Amino acid sequence: MLPTILFKNNSIKMIDQRKLPNQEIYVICRNYKEAAHAISSMVIRGAPAIGVAGAYGVAIESQRTKIKSIKKFIKYMKQVCLTLANARPTAVNLSWAVKRMENRLVGNDSVKNMKQKLVREAIAIEKEDIEANKKLANFGIRFIPKYSNVLTYCNTGGLATAGVGTALGVCEFAHKKGRKIHVYACETRPFLQGLRLTSWELKRMKIPFTLITDNMAGILMKKKKIDLVIVGADRIAANGDTANKIGTYTLAVLANEHKIPFYVAAPFSTVDIYCKTGDFIPIEERSADEYFQWFMPKYRLKDIKVINPAFDVTPNKLIKAIITDKGIYRFPFCLLTKTGN
Amino acid sequence: MLPTILFKNNSIKMIDQRKLPNQEIYVICRNYKEAAHAISSMVIRGAPAIGVAGAYGVAIESQRTKIKSIKKFIKYMKQVCLTLANARPTAVNLSWAVKRMENRLVGNDSVKNMKQKLVREAIAIEKEDIEANKKLANFGIRFIPKYSNVLTYCNTGGLATAGVGTALGVCEFAHKKGRKIHVYACETRPFLQGLRLTSWELKRMKIPFTLITDNMAGILMKKKKIDLVIVGADRIAANGDTANKIGTYTLAVLANEHKIPFYVAAPFSTVDIYCKTGDFIPIEERSADEYFQWFMPKYRLKDIKVINPAFDVTPNKLIKAIITDKGIYRFPFCLLTKTGN
Repeated sequence: MLPTILFKNNSIKMIDQRKLPNQEIYVICRNYKEAAHAISSMVIRGAPAIGVAGAYGVAIESQRTKIKSIKKFIKYMKQVCLTLANARPTAVNLSWAVKRMENRLVGNDSVKNMKQKLVREAIAIEKEDIEANKKLANFGIRFIPKYSNVLTYCNTGGLATAGVGTALGVCEFAHKKGRKIHVYACETRPFLQGLRLTSWELKRMKIPFTLITDNMAGILMKKKKIDLVIVGADRIAANGDTANKIGTYTLAVLANEHKIPFYVAAPFSTVDIYCKTGDFIPIEERSADEYFQWFMPKYRLKDIKVINPAFDVTPNKLIKAIITDKGIYRFPFCLLTKTGN
Repeated sequence: MLPTILFKNNSIKMIDQRKLPNQEIYVICRNYKEAAHAISSMVIRGAPAIGVAGAYGVAIESQRTKIKSIKKFIKYMKQVCLTLANARPTAVNLSWAVKRMENRLVGNDSVKNMKQKLVREAIAIEKEDIEANKKLANFGIRFIPKYSNVLTYCNTGGLATAGVGTALGVCEFAHKKGRKIHVYACETRPFLQGLRLTSWELKRMKIPFTLITDNMAGILMKKKKIDLVIVGADRIAANGDTANKIGTYTLAVLANEHKIPFYVAAPFSTVDIYCKTGDFIPIEERSADEYFQWFMPKYRLKDIKVINPAFDVTPNKLIKAIITDKGIYRFPFCLLTKTGN
């Protein structure tokens, strides 16, 4: 299998996640505008994956530009960074990764050297994400009982990161270590990441699973069919409030009501220490097309008011633990200081 | 607009609800098997509506049969009743209505007279449902504040009954009485009754509304965008536990968590006094096709395990009031005795 994102010949290649599961089509981005568009139109999605894509977007543009003056190069590249960082607003990994790239645009270096540094930084960001995935998966498996039914949401597997994934990576590691897990994958309306991507990944990993509609989670919990919930994150505030795919908050309330542990798994790059609480996390509003784009034309509605907030915020008190590559954090979360592992 | 079900020339005509909103196609049933199939395949759905359809299914078959002997006629019609009553298991209105038809199959009457009685009984059941809808809508509007955001689920309008509907009928009456309501309609996966039917009805009634995915309800409640939740019912146990469309339980838990009143609106024919608690309500499991039938072929999955329970049960303690045509019932529900109106 191709990695989520492949940097080669100064271009980036990624599987078009909008076409999965029945079509495996690849998209090649040759400049930063194409990369920004791939991110905003969700060819690639998943907080850590779009961070890596953003970094490589900067890298490929740095290779492409013919600008010779270092001053002009830096000015141009800063504008490139701005465009890429703004391709999507909620997942902090994107602005975090692009900021790391931008931090390389300093000093009185030659353009050639700076281009090399940018490529190296993007590769480093990708490698670090792969490592972070492994570490957090290893930290997380302690929360997966030997025989367990795990509820997960959206897609948090290999497609959502550069590595094995976050919440789904924990499931994969648990499965590989011999835990007998069964996953309930919520389909995740409106973009159907669970139906299209998570089920595709679980099938490939040969992990037993059942696809459910999002609204079935409540009654399954009531019937004691769920032992734990584990989800990813798009931005974690310093107090542990977590923005994740719309619907996550509902699952957290349900888990709390039924006394089922609710875990968040994310690389530490998802933590925004400058964001004091979830109230300060910007929530992306996406287009109404995402309700209907999967449907046959005869079921698509026109002139209907819909809202499409892509994320919601789960308050820290509903989260049992946040599993990161730097260790495990528990309520009351103080994400600046590790409280244990 | 045609009524949900039209009995004419010894056949029944109904709009094919699976084809809505973009196609208005009618189905004509000329015998009981066609009627049973229309019910089980959800050409017509909604607890009160399928009750009426079941009754008319008996009526049309009674007109069609050439049996002359009263004994053979009764025997044949009882088997017809059995088939129709079993077309769907959860909504008690169906077996209740068919039972009323079956109760006419007694005495030493002529076949001709009995046929007339059966037709009259079916017409009575339809008329009573129309009346019950009006009465419960009038009882219900007291719960709709002058300016309010109402969350509703599935489809409980004219399409789901013979009359103005149950929960949506309450909204319509409130709207007509000048209350400034705005409805949040949950799309209701997997069958999309909210997206396809409720939005179609709300548009025709010119009630302002917003379509949402089911998983958005939680965050809207947290943000104080919802003043009340009102849903229909498929079967209400004697203690008030209520079976309704899958996902209703989740909404009830969320409403309870956010201290938002949660109401059930249904004709009294939905109450099953022989069913002590919700534990005894049979829950229909439907096919996996219902996940995917709306999607373009490239988004349909094969060889994926899905579950598709069509209903869940909301425990009585999460329900603020049950609005029926016989009055309003409040916790602790004692549905055999009216506790007020």
